[in-house]
Amino acid sequence: MPDTTALPPVQLSQRAGYAKEQAISFLMQQGIENPGVISLAAGFVDFASLPVRETREALASLLADMTKGQQALQYGTTQGSLRLRHRVHELFARLEGVPAKELGVGLDRILMTTGSQQLLSLLCEVLFNPGDICLVSGPTYFVFLAALQGVGAQAIVIPSDEDGLRTDALDATLQQLDADGKLDRVKLIYLVSYYENPSGISISTDRRREVVEIARRWSKQQRILILEDAAYRELRYDGPQWPSVWSFDAGGEHVIYTQTFSKSFSPGIRVGFGIIPTDLIAPLCDRKGNDDFGSPNLMQQLLIEVLDRGLYEPHVAEVQSAYRIKRDAMLAAADEFFSDIPGATWVHPHGGLYVWMTLSHEIPTGFNTPLWTSAVHDEGVMYVPGELSYPSDMPDRPR
Amino acid sequence: MPDTTALPPVQLSQRAGYAKEQAISFLMQQGIENPGVISLAAGFVDFASLPVRETREALASLLADMTKGQQALQYGTTQGSLRLRHRVHELFARLEGVPAKELGVGLDRILMTTGSQQLLSLLCEVLFNPGDICLVSGPTYFVFLAALQGVGAQAIVIPSDEDGLRTDALDATLQQLDADGKLDRVKLIYLVSYYENPSGISISTDRRREVVEIARRWSKQQRILILEDAAYRELRYDGPQWPSVWSFDAGGEHVIYTQTFSKSFSPGIRVGFGIIPTDLIAPLCDRKGNDDFGSPNLMQQLLIEVLDRGLYEPHVAEVQSAYRIKRDAMLAAADEFFSDIPGATWVHPHGGLYVWMTLSHEIPTGFNTPLWTSAVHDEGVMYVPGELSYPSDMPDRPR
Repeated sequence: MPDTTALPPVQLSQRAGYAKEQAISFLMQQGIENPGVISLAAGFVDFASLPVRETREALASLLADMTKGQQALQYGTTQGSLRLRHRVHELFARLEGVPAKELGVGLDRILMTTGSQQLLSLLCEVLFNPGDICLVSGPTYFVFLAALQGVGAQAIVIPSDEDGLRTDALDATLQQLDADGKLDRVKLIYLVSYYENPSGISISTDRRREVVEIARRWSKQQRILILEDAAYRELRYDGPQWPSVWSFDAGGEHVIYTQTFSKSFSPGIRVGFGIIPTDLIAPLCDRKGNDDFGSPNLMQQLLIEVLDRGLYEPHVAEVQSAYRIKRDAMLAAADEFFSDIPGATWVHPHGGLYVWMTLSHEIPTGFNTPLWTSAVHDEGVMYVPGELSYPSDMPDRPR
Repeated sequence: MPDTTALPPVQLSQRAGYAKEQAISFLMQQGIENPGVISLAAGFVDFASLPVRETREALASLLADMTKGQQALQYGTTQGSLRLRHRVHELFARLEGVPAKELGVGLDRILMTTGSQQLLSLLCEVLFNPGDICLVSGPTYFVFLAALQGVGAQAIVIPSDEDGLRTDALDATLQQLDADGKLDRVKLIYLVSYYENPSGISISTDRRREVVEIARRWSKQQRILILEDAAYRELRYDGPQWPSVWSFDAGGEHVIYTQTFSKSFSPGIRVGFGIIPTDLIAPLCDRKGNDDFGSPNLMQQLLIEVLDRGLYEPHVAEVQSAYRIKRDAMLAAADEFFSDIPGATWVHPHGGLYVWMTLSHEIPTGFNTPLWTSAVHDEGVMYVPGELSYPSDMPDRPR
């Protein structure tokens, strides 16, 4: 046995200290270790909806052709398959309701990533020095808060209401930061624009326009960017079809738009994409070149085959149907079991995966509370505690 | 048209400035854009050897079972599939020539990554503050130099000879760094232990032992780690079977061992792994949790199927045969065309993908030289200029 008492410690980087144990990994691990528990946490995709048949058909076709198969099993490029970027361009144009030629986006502004998570992370890397500021709609996607923390950035919460991010509060916060001499530390505004994780809310059309105007107006010394996370855009069950925040950024200079095939097709392939302002493409690709010099080519070629064979849109329709039923079941269960609880309220989302529920202040919901323990171990139900959706250093963080 | 003259610039992070345009992306792009050119650059895998049949068989089997298919299309975990880590454990034991039970490595010390490149990058992130030092064998893998540069770390070259990294020079450099008060900035020693990229050399057995002893001896304030990049270990054509550097680290505390399935199976699936000292697993997983919370599960499940169906080892044997022929052809061509060139020498490698050739000092070989231009555009042959294999700030960098 080595004398471990004499073993000098590993000196980790400052950055490693920022990225302490992440709640997402804990939740995903819990979900896998407790298969009997009904998990309302961590955004796992509905098992029965996963496209086994479509994937089998697409891969059989791809690998039946020796040359296509070999190309798919070779390295790709850092930025991602050109042919897939072409298909993504068409998909994005369709979602925007604009002919692809009029979109005003070249294929050189599309970046393929390992899920949209990688784009969130790459963007944090290339934008934030420690102490730089990101304005986030609150509550927000807790994994993005971890990514900000991982680079030492500061998250400042902008409150939201039933119409999403409050643009008056956004403007007031920027005014205050300017008065405090901190405007030059503000790099980014982050929001989930469709059926927000976790609130379930979609920001109103007027406010979408206003967010872009506000970012432009306060871009004084440096540009203030907007990260529009549209992960759930295609999971629409009813209600309005909102225009993207991106569509209000005529010059394509302020909004980074990101979407993923994880929710609409399969998270097991981990393919996401970004529509990126021209001057951010090179820094993001340089960083990705260091990190992995390209996401798995085989998964990108699979997705091309799925799109080319017309397997994608029918699957999205199936997924919408499956989740609509689940949403309705969740809301019916809430009506049945939570209506009598004083102070309990919840949101009726038009799409996505999230129902945000608020309990009275007397009932804390975090990992170390009686509610969490009882839910997971006695009742067999796992949820995401709301406190995770606010920065841990927020003074009046909801519990 | 927006008034772009008035557009304030994006203020990138300090770190984005470190990661300027990477040679790997340039070379890979060149290879793809010039399919007619014979590429001796960028480590692309031999096209004809890519395992289309094996992949088709494994995926058909995986996706024929609805439940297995759904599991493969779901999210995995940040650290990687437990079942795949079990298979990797068995593979590693076989390579080490030790029964799996006697390996002394738990599955919790294995990390699955997007190619071994991601492990190199994650390790840079969690270890290096700007100005920290990594000792590298010279010439070395130029993409790792870029990863070091990307976090602001300093690479110091330790010269190598026909027996690999010169351990006397390693010891002397550490002594000098200690004298200069810089020993506490030394975090890592990096080497490619089998058929080194780019030298083709494998470090001798005695020096493998000495590297570990030296790292241990100079671990005073903090531990000096060794990153053993064994990417080419299984591409052995003849010659000795060297023990790993890892095998000399009885406590498993100094050596991070990494290997990839990119060269031995397919780079299109981007699956690599690391055998990690216990106290580094959590920081690496935390970082990976931020970056992508897990490499594509479908690719990991594919690899399990390939290993379980006995498709892997026969394929490795095929790959060895294919590359042995290519190596012999390269060496025969060198004999035929370069023997008469004064000062031209080259290495006869026993495995891997690299033949390192040295020309006289009067013939510079970089991207902007007559040789490169003539080779790529007139002769249709692409190579990796040797200067890339040394840090760009090295005073007497070979040209």
